[in-house]
Amino acid sequence: MNFNYILFFAVLISQSISSQEKRARDYGIEIGVMKTGKQNAITDVDGVKVGHTTLIDGDSIRTGVTAILPHAKNIFQLKIPAAIYIGNGFGKLAGYSQVKELGNIETPIILTNTLSVPKASDALITYTLNQPENNNVRSVNSVVGETNDGYLNDIQGRHVKEKHVLAAIKNASTSNVEEGNVGAGTGTVCFGFKGGIGTSSRMIPETLGGYTVGVLVQTNFGGVLQINGAPIAKELNSYPYKNEMEADGSCMIVVITDAPIGSRNLERMAKRAMLGLAKTGGIASNGSGDYVIALSTAKENLIDSKNDSAFYQPKELKNGKTTPLFMATIEATEEAIINSLFAAKDMTGRNNHTIKALPIADILDIMKKYNLIREE
Amino acid sequence: MNFNYILFFAVLISQSISSQEKRARDYGIEIGVMKTGKQNAITDVDGVKVGHTTLIDGDSIRTGVTAILPHAKNIFQLKIPAAIYIGNGFGKLAGYSQVKELGNIETPIILTNTLSVPKASDALITYTLNQPENNNVRSVNSVVGETNDGYLNDIQGRHVKEKHVLAAIKNASTSNVEEGNVGAGTGTVCFGFKGGIGTSSRMIPETLGGYTVGVLVQTNFGGVLQINGAPIAKELNSYPYKNEMEADGSCMIVVITDAPIGSRNLERMAKRAMLGLAKTGGIASNGSGDYVIALSTAKENLIDSKNDSAFYQPKELKNGKTTPLFMATIEATEEAIINSLFAAKDMTGRNNHTIKALPIADILDIMKKYNLIREE
Amino acid sequence: MNFNYILFFAVLISQSISSQEKRARDYGIEIGVMKTGKQNAITDVDGVKVGHTTLIDGDSIRTGVTAILPHAKNIFQLKIPAAIYIGNGFGKLAGYSQVKELGNIETPIILTNTLSVPKASDALITYTLNQPENNNVRSVNSVVGETNDGYLNDIQGRHVKEKHVLAAIKNASTSNVEEGNVGAGTGTVCFGFKGGIGTSSRMIPETLGGYTVGVLVQTNFGGVLQINGAPIAKELNSYPYKNEMEADGSCMIVVITDAPIGSRNLERMAKRAMLGLAKTGGIASNGSGDYVIALSTAKENLIDSKNDSAFYQPKELKNGKTTPLFMATIEATEEAIINSLFAAKDMTGRNNHTIKALPIADILDIMKKYNLIREE
Amino acid sequence: MNFNYILFFAVLISQSISSQEKRARDYGIEIGVMKTGKQNAITDVDGVKVGHTTLIDGDSIRTGVTAILPHAKNIFQLKIPAAIYIGNGFGKLAGYSQVKELGNIETPIILTNTLSVPKASDALITYTLNQPENNNVRSVNSVVGETNDGYLNDIQGRHVKEKHVLAAIKNASTSNVEEGNVGAGTGTVCFGFKGGIGTSSRMIPETLGGYTVGVLVQTNFGGVLQINGAPIAKELNSYPYKNEMEADGSCMIVVITDAPIGSRNLERMAKRAMLGLAKTGGIASNGSGDYVIALSTAKENLIDSKNDSAFYQPKELKNGKTTPLFMATIEATEEAIINSLFAAKDMTGRNNHTIKALPIADILDIMKKYNLIREE
Repeated sequence: MNFNYILFFAVLISQSISSQEKRARDYGIEIGVMKTGKQNAITDVDGVKVGHTTLIDGDSIRTGVTAILPHAKNIFQLKIPAAIYIGNGFGKLAGYSQVKELGNIETPIILTNTLSVPKASDALITYTLNQPENNNVRSVNSVVGETNDGYLNDIQGRHVKEKHVLAAIKNASTSNVEEGNVGAGTGTVCFGFKGGIGTSSRMIPETLGGYTVGVLVQTNFGGVLQINGAPIAKELNSYPYKNEMEADGSCMIVVITDAPIGSRNLERMAKRAMLGLAKTGGIASNGSGDYVIALSTAKENLIDSKNDSAFYQPKELKNGKTTPLFMATIEATEEAIINSLFAAKDMTGRNNHTIKALPIADILDIMKKYNLIREE
Repeated sequence: MNFNYILFFAVLISQSISSQEKRARDYGIEIGVMKTGKQNAITDVDGVKVGHTTLIDGDSIRTGVTAILPHAKNIFQLKIPAAIYIGNGFGKLAGYSQVKELGNIETPIILTNTLSVPKASDALITYTLNQPENNNVRSVNSVVGETNDGYLNDIQGRHVKEKHVLAAIKNASTSNVEEGNVGAGTGTVCFGFKGGIGTSSRMIPETLGGYTVGVLVQTNFGGVLQINGAPIAKELNSYPYKNEMEADGSCMIVVITDAPIGSRNLERMAKRAMLGLAKTGGIASNGSGDYVIALSTAKENLIDSKNDSAFYQPKELKNGKTTPLFMATIEATEEAIINSLFAAKDMTGRNNHTIKALPIADILDIMKKYNLIREE
Repeated sequence: MNFNYILFFAVLISQSISSQEKRARDYGIEIGVMKTGKQNAITDVDGVKVGHTTLIDGDSIRTGVTAILPHAKNIFQLKIPAAIYIGNGFGKLAGYSQVKELGNIETPIILTNTLSVPKASDALITYTLNQPENNNVRSVNSVVGETNDGYLNDIQGRHVKEKHVLAAIKNASTSNVEEGNVGAGTGTVCFGFKGGIGTSSRMIPETLGGYTVGVLVQTNFGGVLQINGAPIAKELNSYPYKNEMEADGSCMIVVITDAPIGSRNLERMAKRAMLGLAKTGGIASNGSGDYVIALSTAKENLIDSKNDSAFYQPKELKNGKTTPLFMATIEATEEAIINSLFAAKDMTGRNNHTIKALPIADILDIMKKYNLIREE
Repeated sequence: MNFNYILFFAVLISQSISSQEKRARDYGIEIGVMKTGKQNAITDVDGVKVGHTTLIDGDSIRTGVTAILPHAKNIFQLKIPAAIYIGNGFGKLAGYSQVKELGNIETPIILTNTLSVPKASDALITYTLNQPENNNVRSVNSVVGETNDGYLNDIQGRHVKEKHVLAAIKNASTSNVEEGNVGAGTGTVCFGFKGGIGTSSRMIPETLGGYTVGVLVQTNFGGVLQINGAPIAKELNSYPYKNEMEADGSCMIVVITDAPIGSRNLERMAKRAMLGLAKTGGIASNGSGDYVIALSTAKENLIDSKNDSAFYQPKELKNGKTTPLFMATIEATEEAIINSLFAAKDMTGRNNHTIKALPIADILDIMKKYNLIREE
């Protein structure tokens, strides 16, 4: 079975799945105190698009690419205020220093596996150079995150190619973000269960600005699993140093808001995503590559290459108005991680390794025992 | 009533209280999966001493000083590997840059109120210069943390004096760390309830090194309170932007271990304390000054001025062995914060402001509703 | 002789000196390629004021305070975009983390000696609380820098008192910045010669914005002295590890511009000041506390507490327009350091230690040998 | 002409050149006060190897690869204490965050052009996976630096391929480091002249440890050129904003020492390389990607995967012993940059753009005018 077929197949499958499957909230698990957006997804932020390329082939290819496009225009020509926070830096994210120095991003964000970062980074250069208006571009700061899917995937094979990255960008859509074993989440493992892609969002009350905060995660980390406060890991007797469970692993987190804030406050917001990860029981183990990329898509603050003024004149929320955004980031990150676990399915891959999905029925029983699920 | 009397009185009172009062764990609230140390306190780390000076006087003095001494010797002459992580930097902690640059601390750690940092910092200089062997010292990097107790305390009065700092150091003891409305926690507010000093510890299993991790906190922050996973804030309908509860505030966290690790890994460990704070519902709001000071007291790695070798030859845990310390830091921080809330009592202070203690009976009912308390 | 008298005396003396003495540029030493401002001083930036309190008393008091006021209004109520860059953090600067987190300063900047930072920090609290409109202030982030004048000064005596700090603020003026053995530079040592306060400025060409960049330094560091490129240290055979010269020491650098830039670009600008220090031969030795505080006083970007909009709407230079500011910072820092050396006089202090001023006649001869001085 | 031929040809040519050409020091330009190593090159540090692949083809391919191997063994299995300092982050260096988090590197260091970082990064993965003992490796932190040679080189063509990277590693040798238009320096521009690769070294006096510090640079930046203090840019009337000279550009700096120091002190050492860059007139313009990678090859401190102790037991120089290393780094960086300029030749490339080499005869005249050259 070749990749193109898989690509096609995966898109079909996962789209049909996504319309049938229930998410944590559908089961009555209501994380936090803020309201979700309409889709409870990063795509609730106006204009944001997400696309996946899922690579499942033969015995051992279990990987993929997830692309996040903050807006529909030429990102290189209309850069976006951004920051990256490093929760734990045992990872290979590309693009950190320029985002830190200049406070913006100029490419879509790509997530993939650890050893495919260079390919994805190169593909973003191709993508950028090939866009209209970019003929003269000779410097591109690709932003690529990763986690290591090497337990299930033949990561050494570096099966992600340029076409897969470009396909994920092309497939990107403003709705129906697939979760679970798709894209960059195809081969990941989280809390000993099958991890994957998850997403969630929160609405800031109108009186505080009415902004949206969306989060997308690629979950591949360990810890002491807690769902909406329920001590899942304790109940299942499964956590680091107790049994064979791996503590290590990584989490990529992308936070996007339409709230108008600049890179300094975006970095602060990014930092809070790690607090959301903590609420799921994540411990940011030594081997974790935990990175949070935060963006603000507020239209008036985009950096437009066509604007030849010497000045940048943003309209930014004051420091004192940022706390609701922090709360929203924490909640949406926590729920996005849980969503990734609920969406992922059993997966068998490299060396016949098998990772089971979260045992949803058992989990729901535990949630009921702890009364941490809405009664129907 | 003068300060000396108060000092004397406060010590008496709080000592008698501490022997009677129940801590969260005594009620059956068992946070995390690791074992606590004997005292479940930062003083479980061998040699660590904690002392308080509590200033309660008249209508509006509600403040104090907490001193943490990592070892009993001359700290300036026997410096201690250390790191400081800034969770959110809206605070006035003294001593950051030198600790970052040199990787060690050379004074006791003092906690107090925001506007008393300079006085405490100056007192640490006095303390250091007055110690034997320090005659020639002409540079002292005081490490002083703070939170803002200005709601209950006449903070503008700057009532903390040198003698109070020196007394806290002198009072310091290796056992019976008082919690709640004592020392630097006398006037603090946390999640809308009376905050204060809290402490906890965790033991690393023998197979992983058998080390101890101790945490002490000064809690003065807001968020969406969660105790051992139970959604207290939701139950009480009390959280930021829902009612008048303040989101702002700060948390000082001191983490000490006897595990032999250097400043780079101590900074990583310090970072994890914020994950513990997150599990209590802390959001690190805009107005927070959240700082984590982490130290390793492993004897073989102390920096001894009497050792005139050109070389420093530590024996440090490898990166790959640090994860259990991270887990322990998260758990002990979470429990220390909860302990501070359980220990604190109602307090009335400046402008007749009153902050109520955590309503323990109600809390226990909620914990039972959620089955998050050990049944007796 | 009491302090008040000294204060009075010092002001008289140094004012008369400053009108007589020649600065490096007056001798024909023309550093860099950009034009200086009218005064060639930090006070060329409109509204900036500098004041000194010089403490010289008896055998061993040789210290002082320098205050820099970025504007004439209430700084707490009209905060100023700012950043602090740590060149080498072996120092005790107060105020770092809040400036980093919030991107602004809210007090005058005070420079003094190492062990007097707490006193100065406390004095800034007093100053702030006592200002009109600040009745309700309960949190103040004092910004205080220092170098260690303990070779000439009885630093252990902590002779700087609140009144000296308040006097320096009060004395501050928009013109005639005194250099050399004044204020915080009274007892400092630089490249083995008497150091002190120095200042310089640069004008950005009108076509690039017409902005002013001003720098003030407190020089107390070592290295391999070079003046406008001339190898002074080699000529004098005096540099670290060659003879007894100390490599250690510190440099405080304050950079102010009226160019409209925010905290991220101010931090970048601050970083360049260390490049200016390098051009004088500074090496940022292990024992250095090298800090650069950078501010933008552009009126439209000040953070006004009276403005109750939720938004901050600065008009900032784009990243691409910052390079001239970087060049100006480098040049003005280099010249400010050299100015401090030219202005300082011989000083005898503690334990009869004597530090000689730069031997100007010899230096001029060397400059001529290397043709690095304008011919008259 | 195909690449393999060019490779072969380039190696031949540049080896013959390197034995004939004079370096700055050969002309009597003696930078700094410390002694150089035997080769005055980064390869003076025992075991360090450098290799180049130079790509010159047709009208517009003017680029290449430079590989630095800190030791001759399997670097992944015998990791090296390391740090990366970001002088200005407008660049695409790969590998930053893991080096920061873990304090070591695990691949050779590759330098190339901006848009070829992904290819080089991928090639380092190939290199690592293919080495004996690395069968099970599933995570590789490639360290790749770059500057932008797009003025002379068809950078959009991304002509650097995996084979070129592997060839540079294979070619690497412990002696005869070629400078100028070779490897990653083939198409670079510096101070308006042809830049390239440069190298230098310094010896720490025996009494201070007898260590070696070596530096290699890839120069592609702007500023106000100064050679050994002589104001070249002023003399030539050529500097940013004066004429059409570009201020922008980047500099990659690799610092290697055999002095036993850990990642914290390596970061401090790396920071000093920017002070050396400053002494050549570099301004770290907005568009600069200035990165310093610092390594310590001290054998006893390498991190050996075969050592299965839980502990890492380095023998490191104390903080107080690092200053000579800082001085050496500054001097060697300054000289390495100047060496790159002296070695580079005229180059014509893309769009018939031509960059002239430093006009050595004129420069020597200027050096004589300023007496900053040793008389013969």
